[in-house]
Amino acid sequence: MIVLVLNCGSSSLKYQLVNMDNEEVMAKGLVERIGMEDAVFTHKWNGQKKEVTQSIPDHKVAVQLLLNALTDKECGVIASMDAIDAIGHRVVHGGEEFAASTLITDEVMKALERCSDMAPLHNPPNIIGINACKAIMPNVPQVAVFDTAFHQTMPAKAYMYGLPYELYKENGIRRYGFHGTSHRYVAGQVAKVMGKPVEELRIINCHLGNGSSLAAIKNGKCVDTTMGFTPLAGVLMGTRCGDLDPAIVLNVMDKKGLSTSEMDTLMNKKSGVLGISGVSSDFRDLGAAAAEGNERAQLALDMFHYQVRKFIGAFAAAMGGVDVITFTAGVGENGIEDRAAICDGLEYLGAKLCPERNNVRGKDALISTDDSTVKMYVIPTNEEIMIARDTKEIVAE
Amino acid sequence: MIVLVLNCGSSSLKYQLVNMDNEEVMAKGLVERIGMEDAVFTHKWNGQKKEVTQSIPDHKVAVQLLLNALTDKECGVIASMDAIDAIGHRVVHGGEEFAASTLITDEVMKALERCSDMAPLHNPPNIIGINACKAIMPNVPQVAVFDTAFHQTMPAKAYMYGLPYELYKENGIRRYGFHGTSHRYVAGQVAKVMGKPVEELRIINCHLGNGSSLAAIKNGKCVDTTMGFTPLAGVLMGTRCGDLDPAIVLNVMDKKGLSTSEMDTLMNKKSGVLGISGVSSDFRDLGAAAAEGNERAQLALDMFHYQVRKFIGAFAAAMGGVDVITFTAGVGENGIEDRAAICDGLEYLGAKLCPERNNVRGKDALISTDDSTVKMYVIPTNEEIMIARDTKEIVAE
Repeated sequence: MIVLVLNCGSSSLKYQLVNMDNEEVMAKGLVERIGMEDAVFTHKWNGQKKEVTQSIPDHKVAVQLLLNALTDKECGVIASMDAIDAIGHRVVHGGEEFAASTLITDEVMKALERCSDMAPLHNPPNIIGINACKAIMPNVPQVAVFDTAFHQTMPAKAYMYGLPYELYKENGIRRYGFHGTSHRYVAGQVAKVMGKPVEELRIINCHLGNGSSLAAIKNGKCVDTTMGFTPLAGVLMGTRCGDLDPAIVLNVMDKKGLSTSEMDTLMNKKSGVLGISGVSSDFRDLGAAAAEGNERAQLALDMFHYQVRKFIGAFAAAMGGVDVITFTAGVGENGIEDRAAICDGLEYLGAKLCPERNNVRGKDALISTDDSTVKMYVIPTNEEIMIARDTKEIVAE
Repeated sequence: MIVLVLNCGSSSLKYQLVNMDNEEVMAKGLVERIGMEDAVFTHKWNGQKKEVTQSIPDHKVAVQLLLNALTDKECGVIASMDAIDAIGHRVVHGGEEFAASTLITDEVMKALERCSDMAPLHNPPNIIGINACKAIMPNVPQVAVFDTAFHQTMPAKAYMYGLPYELYKENGIRRYGFHGTSHRYVAGQVAKVMGKPVEELRIINCHLGNGSSLAAIKNGKCVDTTMGFTPLAGVLMGTRCGDLDPAIVLNVMDKKGLSTSEMDTLMNKKSGVLGISGVSSDFRDLGAAAAEGNERAQLALDMFHYQVRKFIGAFAAAMGGVDVITFTAGVGENGIEDRAAICDGLEYLGAKLCPERNNVRGKDALISTDDSTVKMYVIPTNEEIMIARDTKEIVAE
């Protein structure tokens, strides 16, 4: 079975074509700046790469373009579109309606529209991508895989906010959590690497990248996570502020005369390590600036490491202890110094980082000492393979 | 030395007259509903109590009234106002200007006015109280004791929010923390009870009442706390929501068409365990309702216990471990079942509650088992004695 995995953003589209007989990635690529005259299309296959700059007015054109590439005589990997058995879409917000991946039907599309209200930046491009595929390949089954679904097992004490109950019942104000597909992949993968059933492990997964979230995964099920109603919550991120005293939102709006939408931009785009450092949202830039003596860059890094460490402690308390701590995504997989700074002070938990083993990037690796009772691992995430697996499974049903 | 301790709220005034030679409380009382025709004045002395309902137009009248009572032939405990050597005031917000208690001068008054901007509900009545005393007893030295001062030792990584740095520099947006006088008292008292120097202990103090905050106190200094820029942050409380995904504030304002001031009221007055349960902001009422099967009352309690437990875990991570966990204030001192629920799942830290010892209310008591490596105590708070002690010390300088 050949599955096309799609991740549609507002002006971008990422894809992978996966042969599910052996989980081999046949081709993958990226369309950026959709809607512009100088959009960029990058296609990779058989170790080769092709980049084209051209006008790409909308997602439908982008989908057609990647299908042309996949079936092209030169850079193609399949004979025709008919070789694609199913399409798996990443969908950000499934609300409380979706606790698992699902075959896309007309009813599902209506539910996705309802969830868009809660993820106005994210769900609409996902829906556009689904409709583009439907127009071009009406007979190919499509599956939605949700960022929120894995977190639907959280108990009410973890997902409820201390607000009037009606705001939950009538307006769906609760913690949903995101990065669920990544958290689910890492939990399964670390259990596999350890040779233990995921049902017997208490895992804290640190998905640390430009957006960051931690999840507490007990016996294979998510019991808590740091992101909340939206992906703004939790630790400070590249440009997002993370958790705040909510009174600050009102104080800043009043003092600066900001509208809700301006305040939203401030917290989502101008905050985080970028806002603190004034240097960059990229952790590599911050490390370089801090090494040169930039105090605000160092502060941004200190805050990030400290907040991640505190959440590790909080999630250990949430699960009555922890067996494994995993690091994934850009910073989690590659930030050797970041991992060292985060784990400095976790020895009380029985978690001891091994400096030599920690000197690793981007591959499954044990990084704790032999006498560390809490095991620590780097596990590169792979959301695409989870989407492809779910798609295969659902279509085969 | 005789010290008058005053705690002025917007429409209330609490007082204690303390003989600092033996720290004995000579008399104490409360004026409620200041500004109303039916204000209530309660005065307690020598095991006796007197309650009067009368018109009390302002704080100056209230101060005069309590001075009359203190020097009254029937219910008085001192011969004249001249017996009062100093006055200690609780002041909520000292900003970054005050890291310790201070003698009140004209310059200090100006600084308090500046801090009022950050605590518009709390500092103005404190200032009114100081001015009332100044008018009546111009020659008696007055001391300000701040709720925020104890937290000024927090490192930047703990007090900074992930917002643009300018909001800190120009607008003072940072974590200040509150209940500092209580946290300081309990830290000193538990060290005394244990017979250990506070400088050698890592303490997590849980001040749990109608307002709640936790503090991480390492070697006698506060390194982190749950309340933030305002007392709204941290765990959910009687009517306050605690920490939120800040995007929720904007979403609710937009959906419900609320102004910043209406949203402030919603989060401060209509949220917390009251908002979740729909029953009460009082934990005793919630316990009773939950026992009768009220699911939302049970949910409110579960959320509260769970959030406190998570912060205990987070603060253990912040300090690289914990030696002592203390419980204080209304719920902390009297909530036997609350303490049991909070500690259920902390065994991984080496913290084991002893059910028999935990069956205690309102007195200094060890409540952990003998083999618990983390000690746990109930320590009734006493902010008044701290205010009196600081006042004595500063006036004696």
